[in-house]
Amino acid sequence: MNTFGKNFRVTSFGESHGTALGAVIDGCPAGLKLKLTDIQKELDRRKPGQSKITTPRKEKDQAEILSGIFEDKTLGTPIAIIVRNKDAKSKDYKKLKNIFRPGHADQIWEEKYGHRDYRGGGRSSGRETIGRVIGGAIAKKLLGKTKIIAHTEVVGNIFAEKFNIKEIEKNPLRCADKNKAKEMMEAIKQAQKEKDSLGGIVRIEIINPPKYLGEPVFEKLQARLAEALLSIGAVRSFEFGSGLCVADMKGSEQNLEKEGISGGISTGNNISIAIAVKPTPSIAQKQQALNNKGKKVDIEIKGRHDPVIIPRLIPVAEAMCAMVLADLLLEPPSFVSQLK
Amino acid sequence: MNTFGKNFRVTSFGESHGTALGAVIDGCPAGLKLKLTDIQKELDRRKPGQSKITTPRKEKDQAEILSGIFEDKTLGTPIAIIVRNKDAKSKDYKKLKNIFRPGHADQIWEEKYGHRDYRGGGRSSGRETIGRVIGGAIAKKLLGKTKIIAHTEVVGNIFAEKFNIKEIEKNPLRCADKNKAKEMMEAIKQAQKEKDSLGGIVRIEIINPPKYLGEPVFEKLQARLAEALLSIGAVRSFEFGSGLCVADMKGSEQNLEKEGISGGISTGNNISIAIAVKPTPSIAQKQQALNNKGKKVDIEIKGRHDPVIIPRLIPVAEAMCAMVLADLLLEPPSFVSQLK
Amino acid sequence: MNTFGKNFRVTSFGESHGTALGAVIDGCPAGLKLKLTDIQKELDRRKPGQSKITTPRKEKDQAEILSGIFEDKTLGTPIAIIVRNKDAKSKDYKKLKNIFRPGHADQIWEEKYGHRDYRGGGRSSGRETIGRVIGGAIAKKLLGKTKIIAHTEVVGNIFAEKFNIKEIEKNPLRCADKNKAKEMMEAIKQAQKEKDSLGGIVRIEIINPPKYLGEPVFEKLQARLAEALLSIGAVRSFEFGSGLCVADMKGSEQNLEKEGISGGISTGNNISIAIAVKPTPSIAQKQQALNNKGKKVDIEIKGRHDPVIIPRLIPVAEAMCAMVLADLLLEPPSFVSQLK
Amino acid sequence: MNTFGKNFRVTSFGESHGTALGAVIDGCPAGLKLKLTDIQKELDRRKPGQSKITTPRKEKDQAEILSGIFEDKTLGTPIAIIVRNKDAKSKDYKKLKNIFRPGHADQIWEEKYGHRDYRGGGRSSGRETIGRVIGGAIAKKLLGKTKIIAHTEVVGNIFAEKFNIKEIEKNPLRCADKNKAKEMMEAIKQAQKEKDSLGGIVRIEIINPPKYLGEPVFEKLQARLAEALLSIGAVRSFEFGSGLCVADMKGSEQNLEKEGISGGISTGNNISIAIAVKPTPSIAQKQQALNNKGKKVDIEIKGRHDPVIIPRLIPVAEAMCAMVLADLLLEPPSFVSQLK
Repeated sequence: MNTFGKNFRVTSFGESHGTALGAVIDGCPAGLKLKLTDIQKELDRRKPGQSKITTPRKEKDQAEILSGIFEDKTLGTPIAIIVRNKDAKSKDYKKLKNIFRPGHADQIWEEKYGHRDYRGGGRSSGRETIGRVIGGAIAKKLLGKTKIIAHTEVVGNIFAEKFNIKEIEKNPLRCADKNKAKEMMEAIKQAQKEKDSLGGIVRIEIINPPKYLGEPVFEKLQARLAEALLSIGAVRSFEFGSGLCVADMKGSEQNLEKEGISGGISTGNNISIAIAVKPTPSIAQKQQALNNKGKKVDIEIKGRHDPVIIPRLIPVAEAMCAMVLADLLLEPPSFVSQLK
Repeated sequence: MNTFGKNFRVTSFGESHGTALGAVIDGCPAGLKLKLTDIQKELDRRKPGQSKITTPRKEKDQAEILSGIFEDKTLGTPIAIIVRNKDAKSKDYKKLKNIFRPGHADQIWEEKYGHRDYRGGGRSSGRETIGRVIGGAIAKKLLGKTKIIAHTEVVGNIFAEKFNIKEIEKNPLRCADKNKAKEMMEAIKQAQKEKDSLGGIVRIEIINPPKYLGEPVFEKLQARLAEALLSIGAVRSFEFGSGLCVADMKGSEQNLEKEGISGGISTGNNISIAIAVKPTPSIAQKQQALNNKGKKVDIEIKGRHDPVIIPRLIPVAEAMCAMVLADLLLEPPSFVSQLK
Repeated sequence: MNTFGKNFRVTSFGESHGTALGAVIDGCPAGLKLKLTDIQKELDRRKPGQSKITTPRKEKDQAEILSGIFEDKTLGTPIAIIVRNKDAKSKDYKKLKNIFRPGHADQIWEEKYGHRDYRGGGRSSGRETIGRVIGGAIAKKLLGKTKIIAHTEVVGNIFAEKFNIKEIEKNPLRCADKNKAKEMMEAIKQAQKEKDSLGGIVRIEIINPPKYLGEPVFEKLQARLAEALLSIGAVRSFEFGSGLCVADMKGSEQNLEKEGISGGISTGNNISIAIAVKPTPSIAQKQQALNNKGKKVDIEIKGRHDPVIIPRLIPVAEAMCAMVLADLLLEPPSFVSQLK
Repeated sequence: MNTFGKNFRVTSFGESHGTALGAVIDGCPAGLKLKLTDIQKELDRRKPGQSKITTPRKEKDQAEILSGIFEDKTLGTPIAIIVRNKDAKSKDYKKLKNIFRPGHADQIWEEKYGHRDYRGGGRSSGRETIGRVIGGAIAKKLLGKTKIIAHTEVVGNIFAEKFNIKEIEKNPLRCADKNKAKEMMEAIKQAQKEKDSLGGIVRIEIINPPKYLGEPVFEKLQARLAEALLSIGAVRSFEFGSGLCVADMKGSEQNLEKEGISGGISTGNNISIAIAVKPTPSIAQKQQALNNKGKKVDIEIKGRHDPVIIPRLIPVAEAMCAMVLADLLLEPPSFVSQLK
């Protein structure tokens, strides 16, 4: 199942070292102004080689629109957009053909599907998120004045303390605290020296969300957001509103909180979400792995990898939230007098 | 949208003070042994009046099977099961008709739907979870030797330290640590005295899960579990595997973890999940509320409420996880030679 | 899969000789005026024992509303409605336990599901349509001034020639031509004498349909209507607009036709549909059947059966069309300026 | 909604004169042998310029595989395949920008979506069916020894009388009766002279279908097939098994028929379906049309059009049936002992 959403449906496709990756967005209403640059701008935030702390794989990740847009406006028909793979050095991966990389999905994929594109993880590669970013870019346009801004709150044991929204896109970490960003960069460099990688926490602010999104039972807004964000491979936790802190709150306190969601439905107030992101599993140090005969072997993963995935995961997290909101925005009317 | 799942579909219905609540389970294969007691047993774990720390509302929550079962086996047809409301003291709620209770969905519901059953929250009441527990009971049967066991890990600032699985159903808190359970009970009694309520953390162990559940992109097992659990009203966070701790782990450490899920797919190893549960919003102390004219008013909620919702949320959390697993168990074959 | 529709979703349940049949209608907007009589009125048109040409099985088919309606208006929550089985003479069927009735789904059901409620066909009985009629009754209310009127156009080789809309509910056949209805009745009596049954053609007029229902590719309005009507067991054909006649029309002629649907989308003009209905398979004459050992046996079906099913199929056909229209009426807006 | 199917999901995209058309096939199991030629072969049967009775628009309709296939086998990931538009003479259509062609969806599209690609009908063009043929080609591979063979049964008032399966692909009409095919060709030439077009009937034989496809209530096999075929723009009717003839059959006769479907479920016997196809609406003679100001204007459609669409619709009809069968083949097991 590679389709996300019910009304605003994003069908993602493509393998890391295949011909192309992309997405088909179906259900986007007609008449939305949309240009290639709206898409490319977001892909550029996700692409490799942005800074010293992202993989140097040289992919321009150039988008091409195949359908659904005419005279710079959506037609109400499916919007197909693709990105061709260019710098796919498949040779690097030949020697990994029979080895299951630690922290990766190689082994389970081989078992579940019987047949696997071992080159760079195939569909289980982070390059899969290109389709998400394409879908999210269109969702963001549809959301108009609602803004979804993700930023780095924690790397390792360093916590951002300030929230300066203008700072976010100015540093490679997309951290809203300039000084803490520098400390985080130092920690990352240190991890790189140790041929290791770091994890952290990303916070997502949904500013000025539409009112009345989400439904009272299974389709609570928080449920849909949690599903969306946990579908990103590296994410290990989700919290919103008072989050984990509710464990030690009293009813009289918690009742005073404004969480932006009540009974599963958006109130129009801002929503704040945090997700924990695991350290990149591809590290340069020698590790023990299993091969496809079940034997333990030593591997050193040479490829080109990110010492921390957070800055490139940020546009993906935003995209997932945008897709959820766009999807719910297109829900049928909730009362009968709203019908045409 | 009151249907959960794609293959194993549970459609829930019913309001707190309506005629009946229930669920229709569609997609359950034929030939599964199923008796009324399989359902009733789970409903009894959820029902009010189980102990001093649950609401004294006297509902027997007696299930009736309307369809789908013949000679104690499923027919492959929809299984409809209902629970009639008995002890629905609607009068208690008349005076709340025009007042929006703090921490409840009253106001947003009124705004979104225009028309509302104000008696006990209607569909936004915790009684809605009866349908979930019914669906989960059948899912559990389908899962056979996979066990899903939820227990109280934290109440307020008291943490369980031991994990004695046999202890769980012996104390009112469903806590696996007998002594800590006693401390938690004391804390709850204290909160009750203060006309207040407490929150906490529930841990869910999925023991002996089927292999290969979940899919690599949007339908990762953790995404589906997160959605399922965050759809329970009081839940504010979700974590699995290394959870929040990944923020301060290195790649070399995290790669060694066995989380039971790899690349979104179950490996067959046990899976451990934690969710934070907010304190019950219905408290007896005087609170400020809004009425439907937008004016602030003081209210004291008299009804019959739980000082901590965790023990009754536990069967609901288990049910949601069971439904996710059953749903994914029924996914089509992943490779072509598995086709009949 | 016992759910019909995407936005207006009707989940049907129940076996012919089980405890109860019914439906849960989810996605109906809040604030729609709805009374039990709106449902009962349609069930009464479907129920047995209406006339000499319907089975004398004495079922009052009394509906009970379990949820979703408060103060005679829908709440926007799932509407659950049930009908209990009363006159279920299961004994009549005991002797058919191991025999597969000709023209019925007994054998294929046994093979596909392994386990079967042999009493009156279980879920494959025409009583299953009670859930459809309940769903359709609510859909009709939602459709307001759109009227869906089905009537008998052909029985055997007798064709209605006049269309007098007021006549339809006045004769047992629901035929719009009073005199031809009498001829049809004679033909049916003759078939009854011969212990046989008759088929025919039902025409469905959709009068004053909402504009813009349906979508240009897979979800064309005619595709959805065809699926809906062919899901009724006895239906063997579907045509709309110029129908079969297009085979011998020229482009210059056909281009002038007003079919009410253009490019899959309703234009607001009336839509006319015809479906062919097979003769009832349960007949009193001796027939050859297979038993569950694969042997040929003679059977005489004693039960209580309809010599022609058309008059009771008419409310079901209307219900299916109503459910399609209601479902499409709730589709998201097709262009962006229609968004709130 | 441009996705067809639940398990085997085909998402189609593309406009007649846009950059490319194509499809993403999701849910196809891993390990299926699949080459570009499997797709191209079917596209070639649909492409223009095959014979004198198809439009001379010169599109090679060359397929390119973007994802989902590795070493000539499916990966279990989405298969994206595109066809670029080459011979798109958009200029021909400029003058039709403000005119709604008779028998086309131009006007309703303009009204429903507000924004329209007027070049060749955009998404409402028959070129849209490229995505269907791609999906169907893969479905056919999955179906293995099940064969789906469509052929021309009627053109105008000429009926095929013989069924010689080897003849079908030998004449431009794909008619199984060689001599009648010649007569049909004459009739078409005559219509061309009159600047007009013809309709007819296509019969589809499903040979050696898998057993147990389809479900007893809403998802009857015939319902799914009817929906699939009626979603092809030119189709006006559907019948299967005894079809329309049931109107004049008796129960005792009809009970003896083998229709290949019983109670909505395939029995393994062959299934025969007929659909009526309207004459091509684009004809060269002068016609009256409406423009976007609501005025009547005369038009002569110059483009390049088919005098009968049937031979090119045949691979599309086969594709739709193949997609339905593939989709149902991937349904979850119907009884519990079939679970792994």
